[in-house]
Amino acid sequence: MSSPSCSVLEMEIFQYIDVHQNDFIEDLKEWVAVESDSVQPDLRKEVIRMMALAADRLGALGATVNLVNLGLHQLPDGQDLPLPPVILGELGKDPQNPTVCFYGHVDVQPAKKEDGWKTDPYTLTEINGNLYGRGATDNKGPVLAWINAVETFKALKLISLTFIQAMPVNFKFVIEGMEEAGSLGLEKLLQEEKQCFFSDVDYIVISDNLWLSNKKPALTYGSRGNACFFVEVQCGDKDLHSGTFGGIIHEPLMDLIALLDSLVDPTGRIQIPGIYDSIAALTEKEMKLYESIEFDLEEHKNNSGVKKFLYDTKEEILLHLWRYPSLSIHGIEGAFHEPGIKTVIPAKVIGKFSIRQVPHMDLSVVKQQVAEHLEGVFSKRNSPNKLKVSMPLGAKPWLADVNEPVYKAARRAIKTVFGEDPDFIQDGSTIPVARMFQTITQKSVMMFPIGAADDGEHSQNEKISRHNYIEGTKVFAAFFLEISKLHQHLAETSNMVADN
Amino acid sequence: MSSPSCSVLEMEIFQYIDVHQNDFIEDLKEWVAVESDSVQPDLRKEVIRMMALAADRLGALGATVNLVNLGLHQLPDGQDLPLPPVILGELGKDPQNPTVCFYGHVDVQPAKKEDGWKTDPYTLTEINGNLYGRGATDNKGPVLAWINAVETFKALKLISLTFIQAMPVNFKFVIEGMEEAGSLGLEKLLQEEKQCFFSDVDYIVISDNLWLSNKKPALTYGSRGNACFFVEVQCGDKDLHSGTFGGIIHEPLMDLIALLDSLVDPTGRIQIPGIYDSIAALTEKEMKLYESIEFDLEEHKNNSGVKKFLYDTKEEILLHLWRYPSLSIHGIEGAFHEPGIKTVIPAKVIGKFSIRQVPHMDLSVVKQQVAEHLEGVFSKRNSPNKLKVSMPLGAKPWLADVNEPVYKAARRAIKTVFGEDPDFIQDGSTIPVARMFQTITQKSVMMFPIGAADDGEHSQNEKISRHNYIEGTKVFAAFFLEISKLHQHLAETSNMVADN
Repeated sequence: MSSPSCSVLEMEIFQYIDVHQNDFIEDLKEWVAVESDSVQPDLRKEVIRMMALAADRLGALGATVNLVNLGLHQLPDGQDLPLPPVILGELGKDPQNPTVCFYGHVDVQPAKKEDGWKTDPYTLTEINGNLYGRGATDNKGPVLAWINAVETFKALKLISLTFIQAMPVNFKFVIEGMEEAGSLGLEKLLQEEKQCFFSDVDYIVISDNLWLSNKKPALTYGSRGNACFFVEVQCGDKDLHSGTFGGIIHEPLMDLIALLDSLVDPTGRIQIPGIYDSIAALTEKEMKLYESIEFDLEEHKNNSGVKKFLYDTKEEILLHLWRYPSLSIHGIEGAFHEPGIKTVIPAKVIGKFSIRQVPHMDLSVVKQQVAEHLEGVFSKRNSPNKLKVSMPLGAKPWLADVNEPVYKAARRAIKTVFGEDPDFIQDGSTIPVARMFQTITQKSVMMFPIGAADDGEHSQNEKISRHNYIEGTKVFAAFFLEISKLHQHLAETSNMVADN
Repeated sequence: MSSPSCSVLEMEIFQYIDVHQNDFIEDLKEWVAVESDSVQPDLRKEVIRMMALAADRLGALGATVNLVNLGLHQLPDGQDLPLPPVILGELGKDPQNPTVCFYGHVDVQPAKKEDGWKTDPYTLTEINGNLYGRGATDNKGPVLAWINAVETFKALKLISLTFIQAMPVNFKFVIEGMEEAGSLGLEKLLQEEKQCFFSDVDYIVISDNLWLSNKKPALTYGSRGNACFFVEVQCGDKDLHSGTFGGIIHEPLMDLIALLDSLVDPTGRIQIPGIYDSIAALTEKEMKLYESIEFDLEEHKNNSGVKKFLYDTKEEILLHLWRYPSLSIHGIEGAFHEPGIKTVIPAKVIGKFSIRQVPHMDLSVVKQQVAEHLEGVFSKRNSPNKLKVSMPLGAKPWLADVNEPVYKAARRAIKTVFGEDPDFIQDGSTIPVARMFQTITQKSVMMFPIGAADDGEHSQNEKISRHNYIEGTKVFAAFFLEISKLHQHLAETSNMVADN
């Protein structure tokens, strides 16, 4: 698959990766087998076990590994639960080299066979070139692809473990286990390590998202934020029988449904007053980036399984995924949710929705707009029930400059491995760590996805293809060489400037 | 507690019951311990075990017991599941005696400790005179109270097992295990047994509802029907990530919420066109029954835990519980329902609601009105998603004549045991068997509750008080004597008429 224009060194690297591809898949199988679901409290021990596995893997590479204990966090029911440790890893210390810090996570979203998986979600299974399993693409596969690439460099003796050899790049690793539950504790750690662990980091690379296409690679320079809301309506302490109380009480679930129904109109427009007011204006230069992107609407539609999108053109779709906020309703806690019939009037129900925000929406303003809107709708219903609106999770959007050197290096690596230029895209999903790393460390942050658009992250039958996993490993390795060359060039240029 | 006006025979009966009350509670404890939940398929074996226990209990009384096999039924997912058998029991065959057929059920609604129970739902626990446990009042307690009363008669040799002694009453029993799941198979069985088992039955008594008050006994002469609806909206086969698809698709859950929000306005009025058209007119005589009822609004409000009802007067509340239809929304299947956050766009969601109908609403008309209304609302949304409306359960309302002899006998028994006249009430809940028994067998059907208004049937912390369970046993026994006296009197009257 690799481009014929690659160097002898690159050829050697790619060959090593091809030869070892089944070993790399075995590693992924071992990781996927751990149900490291960070959302459900009773699986926390599995997340912690997963962190230990990842630490061992880095240790085997020769990296210095520090498992940082983040203490406890409190669940809504008051229970204290240990946070999984965060791995801070380091491999190579040559001050001549650029230092690339890779961020990834090894926790996963919930998954059960009965949700509609064709295979057991925790048994990585290859079918027609695809590797199915929870976490295969989000984010265990990409984390391992990066580690595989580093392993390749180590096996081929391309890493400088001492100060003697001039080798291409120093590596740092930040690997966490709470990403799917809001990266609890990570921000504080980054603050604390800003002057220590991050002081010599040049570039931060995150590979926790997908290409826009099933086939064409991409680099990501922005992601939407995510403000999650809980709307609780309660009439009392116990559920009621719909025969004994149906028709004479204000049902909390009816109040909640009216509240949820007030959020978005059938055209997809959010109905919360003021919500669109502070969105950054679209520049002409930015619009040009949109026009040139190869984006197959039909393919995206096929990946989703839906018959028709809300908008018809590529630009409208991309703008609504990247540049405008969206509101999705996820479900209701406390109501009857099982198959069959239960003629109950639930006493306390919690509606769950989230708003993907974009620059320059302010989280605290959004929170206030949502609360005021819901309180307004609720007060018109004259309901005696209790309303409670909360925002248990608020992640900010992120936007980078595509002219930074790290993007140039990645673009070249992609051209070498995949034979074509990447699309420069944003991501409708939220990767709060991108924003967090940029704000706190003030370093260049790049998102470098290797998964395809149809990988189904967070969904049933999540997968990464064997092709993407292995070529992804190669593209990371090629990136190491490019960033090294670029760094050398920058150093020479800066020396020249100093000489003048 | 018994009225001083009772006979020596009654005294003897009541004393026996008082002496044996702890044995009767032990029996209830044994029954409650069986998780005979007929709603959840994996608990079907427990329902079948419960049927065997009930059959053994009747067998020990000397009753002839027939466990009628009803075959299989099919779940929505295509799975075949065995129906629990129905018990047809018989004790006493004296043609001089009236034959009273008792109907009850020994299956229960789902219950889990974590739903908010103070005690384990399957361990009957006495706290301050209340016996807490799933099924304590709905319907295991009342079924056992009736059996206890029969046992008392047997122990005191008051039942005629031969044709030699003239004794008060012959007993028949219909006990099922699918009531909470729509009494599947029962209607067909009643049709088949109309000319056989039911041919010599004079009165049918059902004790599967509650008093209107916490303290004052009641007799029930009508119940609302129940039409359960499923509204399914689907966009595709797999759930989607709200970052990757939020803002560009018609979310099925938003469609569903809009549909559910169109059903009832904030004043409680159903918004489905035509739904109120065929309701029977309220007569003046009927309204008088309402005015005289002792009904403590505050008490009912306290039982519910809600702060304010939709209506302010006793008459309005009772009319809306008994005489007018109501619509309750129970929940949504397929959406996220767990604690915490999952930023998913569910692909297929099923909203569940039910309409309690009253005479003379026709089920097939109601079904069509609901479907047309929902299709109309849906079509205005221009959604490409698939809508499916179904009515998996439709139970008709029931209304009896309070001047029938069986009501007179029960009224006297209540006066004897509780020292006051009962309220004549209807029930907002649905007891489809009342309607079914009346329509098919053409016999007098009476509902004779012994549970108090605050028993919490279908809810967390369901209970029956020790007082109601034991005095309920007495009132059933007193009823046996009264119905026998009444029958004798009717026979004499009819002989006098024949002599003339």
